[in-house]
Amino acid sequence: MRRWGYRHVITPLVESMGVLDLGLGVDQRRRLFKFTDQRGDLVALVGERTVPVARLAAGKLRGTALPLRLSYAGPVVSTDEGRFHHRRETYQVGAELIGASGPVADAEVIALAARCMEAAGIRRYQIDVGHAEFFHGIMDAVKLPQDVKGAVRAALVARDFVGLESLLEGTPLKSAEHELLLRFPALRGGPDILKAAGGLIRNKRSEAAVEELGRVRDLLIGHGLGDVVVLDLGAIRDFDYYTGVIFEGYGPDLGRPVAQGGRYDGLLARFGRPAAATGFVIQLDLVSELLAAPQLPRIDAAIAWSGSGLSTALRLGATLRLFGMRAIVDTEARSATDAGAWRNDVGAANLVYCRGGAEVAWSAAGRRTRNLPPEQVAARLAGGRLAGGDN
Amino acid sequence: MRRWGYRHVITPLVESMGVLDLGLGVDQRRRLFKFTDQRGDLVALVGERTVPVARLAAGKLRGTALPLRLSYAGPVVSTDEGRFHHRRETYQVGAELIGASGPVADAEVIALAARCMEAAGIRRYQIDVGHAEFFHGIMDAVKLPQDVKGAVRAALVARDFVGLESLLEGTPLKSAEHELLLRFPALRGGPDILKAAGGLIRNKRSEAAVEELGRVRDLLIGHGLGDVVVLDLGAIRDFDYYTGVIFEGYGPDLGRPVAQGGRYDGLLARFGRPAAATGFVIQLDLVSELLAAPQLPRIDAAIAWSGSGLSTALRLGATLRLFGMRAIVDTEARSATDAGAWRNDVGAANLVYCRGGAEVAWSAAGRRTRNLPPEQVAARLAGGRLAGGDN
Repeated sequence: MRRWGYRHVITPLVESMGVLDLGLGVDQRRRLFKFTDQRGDLVALVGERTVPVARLAAGKLRGTALPLRLSYAGPVVSTDEGRFHHRRETYQVGAELIGASGPVADAEVIALAARCMEAAGIRRYQIDVGHAEFFHGIMDAVKLPQDVKGAVRAALVARDFVGLESLLEGTPLKSAEHELLLRFPALRGGPDILKAAGGLIRNKRSEAAVEELGRVRDLLIGHGLGDVVVLDLGAIRDFDYYTGVIFEGYGPDLGRPVAQGGRYDGLLARFGRPAAATGFVIQLDLVSELLAAPQLPRIDAAIAWSGSGLSTALRLGATLRLFGMRAIVDTEARSATDAGAWRNDVGAANLVYCRGGAEVAWSAAGRRTRNLPPEQVAARLAGGRLAGGDN
Repeated sequence: MRRWGYRHVITPLVESMGVLDLGLGVDQRRRLFKFTDQRGDLVALVGERTVPVARLAAGKLRGTALPLRLSYAGPVVSTDEGRFHHRRETYQVGAELIGASGPVADAEVIALAARCMEAAGIRRYQIDVGHAEFFHGIMDAVKLPQDVKGAVRAALVARDFVGLESLLEGTPLKSAEHELLLRFPALRGGPDILKAAGGLIRNKRSEAAVEELGRVRDLLIGHGLGDVVVLDLGAIRDFDYYTGVIFEGYGPDLGRPVAQGGRYDGLLARFGRPAAATGFVIQLDLVSELLAAPQLPRIDAAIAWSGSGLSTALRLGATLRLFGMRAIVDTEARSATDAGAWRNDVGAANLVYCRGGAEVAWSAAGRRTRNLPPEQVAARLAGGRLAGGDN
């Protein structure tokens, strides 16, 4: 997220219900862990961070030029223990691109979500991309009472197609619309579904959605993600704030999405700074369940010492860190033999042994040990390393 | 912290009182925000993270070789709103070095705390370094009833020297001990106070503390921190788990410590894995109060485009990020003139303008614009950048 220019922000864990009421739907509010603070105000532990970030963008960051690229990480709490995979608490990492509309912005956050999944160590993944306006356009166009529309939507969200069919039989819908609603959940796959969808619909809103989704797909190919994208026009979310392109990222276990996001152009206005916005959240606990063995961060150098070599070891450690490397200086004197075992415990790519005197012994993985002045070891380690190792 | 080889860990926000009772003192437990969960168990929002990290090191990380270097970041909550500078919630970042005893380990965490304060943008700071065993040794040696010792300690913590003097007048203390307790809070300054302290004490425990503190000071000079260290043998903490070298880091406003830490060799045993340990916490909210204008993260390249230049822009962005750089690709087409203003909004060191065609226009800050193929721009940007820019 940093490399994509997103600034990390910290939003409160405890938020006033006044703020949360403005941004959240009824279901989300119900699941909040609420309590009364010492002043008698109703507050809650946050259950997501898109709303607090929107409030920050419209409040403290009001004076900052749009678009704003913001990222966050932190725990969220729910009273519904089933919600977060049988946890009352889970850890979410997310990014929001605020003040940018259009397919280039949509594709940016989808590509960023994909790169984040890769960076977390997920090798095989898939991203389903849909469009909230496609369904909104259909529901706008069909002539049905509001309560029947609600029931149709509920049946589609629940993927209850038997219920949907009996619901539609009792309505005076034209056969084309009837067919559309029944075929709608199956509009999922490659670019051919855009054509199939285009043949089924007759309303401007849905047509614009199909066209925009095609444009986002082309851009995702430009981002190198053509192989992992699945188009899904049948996607409906329970969050009611999505207003455009929406997406979900799945790891090899396709049960629950690891990443979820989309466009929500209506939210910022509720906090007084109308702005287009799109973003996503990654469920870090689900990511860690996907990883058989979490990758430990790389250590570049283990620096061991004996006797008066300690001061050389401290200086060498400081120099390597200035070059952006990860260096551990041993906390106790050690023999050269013990140092090898210690380097393995640390898992370092290089061992440097400082005995005192002008030279230190440097052993890179799989190479013979060389004796060199410490500043030459530092220069070679810095030179041999790909720039920008902030993984 | 990453560069010093510390692994970031995430510990729960909601912890069972059983765990917290094991690690926390009475005062800390009293300030916890407690509640009963759906299963009827008493739980609390954490008020600090040293205890949860100790539990992790003794539990899930039991099989990992010591020493362990762990770091954390996250919100903590207190029912005592005065505790965190009139906030019920504050944000703490910390590091723990578990399984390493001795002055080299003590000096490592103090030096790391100092470098973290610098990395956060605090230019002028001071670190007070003391030793919990110095006072423990004195209280061991003086012959006073337990309740009077408690009152002496309380008077010293509160820095109530009038109260201390009248308390001591009622005791049969020898004049040397009497003088020691009165002069104790003043044992603060440069290396000369180690000699002064040595002349006042006659017990092995305090003598060992003075010697160890001197050794840590020498090591901190080796870490390049000689100028910012103040020795403080008069320091007493309200946390009762400190067992060795302790320290506090102050910014230019010397009112409250921004960083606090020290050695706590007794804690890990309470979770079944006896181990020496030292660490510190930084109060991030206090840091942000110290900074007049928080430093925004550097953006290496703003990549603007028009027309068919978008695909070049996307590829260039991906390449620069692979090299570890921070690159923002514009979300809309822009004229060359508008691109300059946009680059200023973004605050980027370089502007690259992609018009389509084989070359892009590259403007580094304060240099004339050059037209080059995009891969040459990427190579020059990667080459011109100091390795390891993960600030």
